[in-house]
Amino acid sequence: MQETAIQDLYADELAVCYGCGRLNEHGLKIKSVWEGEECVARFQPEKYHTGIAGFVYGGLIASLLDCHGIGTAAAAACRARNLDPADTSIPRYVTAALHVDFLRPTPIDGVLEIRGRAVEIKDRKVVVELMLLAHGKECARGSVVAVRMPERMNPLQSTGAEK
Amino acid sequence: MQETAIQDLYADELAVCYGCGRLNEHGLKIKSVWEGEECVARFQPEKYHTGIAGFVYGGLIASLLDCHGIGTAAAAACRARNLDPADTSIPRYVTAALHVDFLRPTPIDGVLEIRGRAVEIKDRKVVVELMLLAHGKECARGSVVAVRMPERMNPLQSTGAEK
Repeated sequence: MQETAIQDLYADELAVCYGCGRLNEHGLKIKSVWEGEECVARFQPEKYHTGIAGFVYGGLIASLLDCHGIGTAAAAACRARNLDPADTSIPRYVTAALHVDFLRPTPIDGVLEIRGRAVEIKDRKVVVELMLLAHGKECARGSVVAVRMPERMNPLQSTGAEK
Repeated sequence: MQETAIQDLYADELAVCYGCGRLNEHGLKIKSVWEGEECVARFQPEKYHTGIAGFVYGGLIASLLDCHGIGTAAAAACRARNLDPADTSIPRYVTAALHVDFLRPTPIDGVLEIRGRAVEIKDRKVVVELMLLAHGKECARGSVVAVRMPERMNPLQSTGAEK
């Protein structure tokens, strides 16, 4: 198990995402860590993350799958290339496509567990399959198609820090 | 043009969604109104809704498409059944599936326009196609499969208010 979340290894300039940036003081601060062949994130919804009373709103579920999918893609790319994420600026991805199937209402009264597995790792594209569980029951599943961050989006591009 | 947003016609008990509930004081308060055959929502992102610096994070885009898709489904169901949404508790939907294709980075420095069109309206299912534009340029597109809210989710079920 990797105890440091992949998001804690992002360069400061790339750690401002509302979903997963450690430096976004308003954000959700999703943290993704390895557990065997899967990356896992756990998230406690706030009461105001409601959709219908008692259940999580869909946009939060989509946000969790999206950001955890992108984190899983970065972590899986490091593993596949034998990069040490603690020693290097890790490759960064953005979402090309996100799909979510909502299987059942997601209760808001506990920690949500999001599990991601990279099923395709190519040079510039990683596909991640995801599931979201509440109280151990799968409530949503989905997928993220992650692509390498376009250079025009990357505030580090002029420093040559992108791997 | 319908000046009252569909979300302003939801019963109070069903107006608590973080994405589109008028009674969720922490939420995004998405408002969907008819413009011809499309429902349209406009949303000004906050600075902290960033993904990469200067661009909106994907989870917000997914949230906007999701909630506006559900609002469009409710509005389209009212039209198809000749219900007057101002006189009745409108039929409510939840998301069965959400798909988002991120076409290009979405700039954070202006009002986002989300346009939805119901392309299939059945008794218990509405399919909505969606696009999101920034500065008039399409940045994301997607779809929502909306299904009638399960009775067990509906706090109004015991009152018989669900149509």
